[in-house]
Amino acid sequence: MLVLITYDVNTQTAAGVRRLARVAKICTNYGQRVQNSVFECIVDQTQYVMLKKQLKDIIDVDKDSVRYYVMGEKYKSKVEHIGVQRAFDVTAPLII
Amino acid sequence: MLVLITYDVNTQTAAGVRRLARVAKICTNYGQRVQNSVFECIVDQTQYVMLKKQLKDIIDVDKDSVRYYVMGEKYKSKVEHIGVQRAFDVTAPLII
Repeated sequence: MLVLITYDVNTQTAAGVRRLARVAKICTNYGQRVQNSVFECIVDQTQYVMLKKQLKDIIDVDKDSVRYYVMGEKYKSKVEHIGVQRAFDVTAPLII
Repeated sequence: MLVLITYDVNTQTAAGVRRLARVAKICTNYGQRVQNSVFECIVDQTQYVMLKKQLKDIIDVDKDSVRYYVMGEKYKSKVEHIGVQRAFDVTAPLII
């Protein structure tokens, strides 16, 4: 299923800058970055639970915010984009 | 229905800073800001078409990015949040 992850990490401190990098790194393990603080992750339930735990362990709940939006299996018709494209559709066939 | 809007606006120019403010203002007309560049908007189909047109007229498609995620009517169970809360649930009963 597709889970959209959006986050705001407070980067006013060096620790915040490190948290931001670690959050992005963890999300990269599960999916693709589509905007600066937005990732689209294809995960099953087990991976989703693990992902949430890993992010919870990283962020400062008093300063940062992470939001999860479960888009389900049939998500392609639910997503639209205009403007510059940041990444490619990881599930799309790779045409060489 | 709930539509999630995420955007990246290039603010390296004064024009970009103005575009960012206008994008946020338009989104505020339709819903609530839940993170810096993330809005949750409750719209019907007609409003959704108008919203997309208004944003398309504002952004620079060569520099900015707007993504729309249609969450549908039954969205509450599909949304999770950890960390600081930015806004309130506009559809929740206001308890005074």
